Amino acid sequence: MAYINDNYSKLQASYLFSDIAKRVAAFTEANPGKEVIKMGIGDVTEPLPAVCRQAFHDAIDEMGTRDGFHGYGPEQGYAFLRETIAQNEFSARGCDIQANEIFVSDGSKCDCGNIQEIFSEQSKVAIPDPVYPVYVDTNVMAGRTGQNSDGRYDGLVYLESTTENGYIPSPPSEKVDMIYLCFPNNPTGTCATREQLQAWVDYAKDCGAIILFDAAYESFIRDPEIPHSIYELDGARECAIEFRSFSKNAGFTGTRCAYTVIPEGLTALDGNNESVSLHQLWNRRHTTKFNGVSYPVQKAAAAVYTEEGKAEVKALTNFYMENAALILKTMKELGFACAGGTNAPYVWIKTDAPSWEFFDRLLNESAIVCTPGAGFGTCGENHFRLSAFNSRQNVELAMERIRKAFA
Amino acid sequence: MAYINDNYSKLQASYLFSDIAKRVAAFTEANPGKEVIKMGIGDVTEPLPAVCRQAFHDAIDEMGTRDGFHGYGPEQGYAFLRETIAQNEFSARGCDIQANEIFVSDGSKCDCGNIQEIFSEQSKVAIPDPVYPVYVDTNVMAGRTGQNSDGRYDGLVYLESTTENGYIPSPPSEKVDMIYLCFPNNPTGTCATREQLQAWVDYAKDCGAIILFDAAYESFIRDPEIPHSIYELDGARECAIEFRSFSKNAGFTGTRCAYTVIPEGLTALDGNNESVSLHQLWNRRHTTKFNGVSYPVQKAAAAVYTEEGKAEVKALTNFYMENAALILKTMKELGFACAGGTNAPYVWIKTDAPSWEFFDRLLNESAIVCTPGAGFGTCGENHFRLSAFNSRQNVELAMERIRKAFA
Repeated sequence: MAYINDNYSKLQASYLFSDIAKRVAAFTEANPGKEVIKMGIGDVTEPLPAVCRQAFHDAIDEMGTRDGFHGYGPEQGYAFLRETIAQNEFSARGCDIQANEIFVSDGSKCDCGNIQEIFSEQSKVAIPDPVYPVYVDTNVMAGRTGQNSDGRYDGLVYLESTTENGYIPSPPSEKVDMIYLCFPNNPTGTCATREQLQAWVDYAKDCGAIILFDAAYESFIRDPEIPHSIYELDGARECAIEFRSFSKNAGFTGTRCAYTVIPEGLTALDGNNESVSLHQLWNRRHTTKFNGVSYPVQKAAAAVYTEEGKAEVKALTNFYMENAALILKTMKELGFACAGGTNAPYVWIKTDAPSWEFFDRLLNESAIVCTPGAGFGTCGENHFRLSAFNSRQNVELAMERIRKAFA
Repeated sequence: MAYINDNYSKLQASYLFSDIAKRVAAFTEANPGKEVIKMGIGDVTEPLPAVCRQAFHDAIDEMGTRDGFHGYGPEQGYAFLRETIAQNEFSARGCDIQANEIFVSDGSKCDCGNIQEIFSEQSKVAIPDPVYPVYVDTNVMAGRTGQNSDGRYDGLVYLESTTENGYIPSPPSEKVDMIYLCFPNNPTGTCATREQLQAWVDYAKDCGAIILFDAAYESFIRDPEIPHSIYELDGARECAIEFRSFSKNAGFTGTRCAYTVIPEGLTALDGNNESVSLHQLWNRRHTTKFNGVSYPVQKAAAAVYTEEGKAEVKALTNFYMENAALILKTMKELGFACAGGTNAPYVWIKTDAPSWEFFDRLLNESAIVCTPGAGFGTCGENHFRLSAFNSRQNVELAMERIRKAFA
């Protein structure tokens, strides 16, 4: 008789986006003429860079010839992509990361979700709050938590991001085994300084923990003092795995390409207290459960590192950052306390009202959709997120409406 | 202190393809002028169909406009693809499968590997021998087996495919919870008849087991009596999940698109012996750990179902099946007992010699690479696999050399 994985029964249904959709639908029905502007979305809106499209087209033409046809590729990604990533993202910043330490995949969500498989079921896991829900849910599914009560799972260590700590949690007093960190942060848009990140690396090395560092938004960093990669910090090669993506820099959310960095020499212990290479473990997982990223997609991703590609990505991220600046300026002028928006495409805004109440007010008075902070965790209450991923016209119109409602 | 998932330590290193590569390299070094023909490969060789390339190109052009840009899509796949799959692969064959029961993914290897996550860790698993190693290894990683001894894992039920049963195992006498089946089979090339498959469905319903049916090679079936889908059998909707792929029919091994069918209403029990929908459980897993297939790739896949696409796929699979016929004819004329090759792109050949010994003879005498059967499991000993995925020229030359060596 087939039985299910009972850990799935512990999962809380995620009503955030369906709740938002329901409220928007109700509003639209009651206000048929009113155009709703969606400022809550974490998805890019601008066209795929021309240089990526050209490389994409060329690869498809290759696939139409017997000599240029590509079947199964290396599961870890083609050398042409791994090498240009290693050079441009890491060597160029002084990080000691080699091409063979990069695993190309079809998405950071997959990698962030799957990485926990190579760790013990008994691991103690530290998770930010507010948080991208994938870190939590995949550990619940794997049995690393107890039941949920009041929105928190037993057994997890929550790293609280609050106004008091500027939304950058410090290492906890207790020891943990796995730590999820995300900078620039989703949803708060905050960035850890070099000193703050170094404290995390030192803590992890001290207690033998592994940092799972999600750097999906690094291309929005403008302050030269802020690290783009955890490997810019001393000792990170001995305690950190990093997740990167082409989704937000080059607009690949619908094209699908990402990568994970696992330094050779990074280890954890087996049941006999012997050190085991996490690089080799992940390689075994990756080659057993994954068959590589589409060859034309890898060609499109590699084009990001041509001179033309770098210029297009810069222009694309600049465009969104101009949106972010517009949002941040408006909200500050209206007297809201804000985080993010200068080195990240999200603005995290404090409000006295409960976040769903604020959501309703913004929708009903201004026909604007935000993301209520409570949807990202307990510490998201009394906050809401505005996203810079939109057309300029929409952002300008939205800010005008907000000024009218809150001035 | 971070600890690893100790189940990984039970995994046997897979030396099959690296051993083959080593022996081929040694031969090539010793015989520099001799051209080696690789007849062991399970990867397609012919160009991507023109109609798929055109749809692929068109989608990329769309991605270059703001109106046509596609960001995150539905994780389960776009309706345009799910609907045409449901219509052409299932409704057209009289199978009651709806579009919303189809989960589009980037590969059958991923789906076959990930599906076990939604089942209990205590499940008793039946696995064919010889077998595609992914079914075994992913269950080892998840802790559903004991240690390996003499090539077999404690706790698994092995379904032996032998000359005696025509390489089609019957249901075992004991009860199991999960059953992996693959028809047309890799590596044996055999197909279960309607009656044989019905016996499996009846057995599964009887003991409440779930059949995980891998139909990646169904497009090579030429005999109209052989089922292409498990859902052609009575009762399969209540006991079976099916895996399909565009890899082998349309040559998508390097383009990446596949799908998994989970009927609504298919259930397993939770710890309280309540029925839980496996469709909903997989939906939760799929949306949490996966972000959808590349939009241009989904467009390319949908083109397979245009009139032109169907003609191209037919021509492509016919081409490989002509190769298979050539291989089968030659090996039979030389007196080898063979399976497969008529409704599958693999010919499974019996030999008195140990399979690695035969591999060496074929390599050294004929400069031909086969896949030694022992690499697929205990029951693969004294067999080898020849693949029809090759150019006509290579297949003709290979058969000529084999005739010379074995006549």
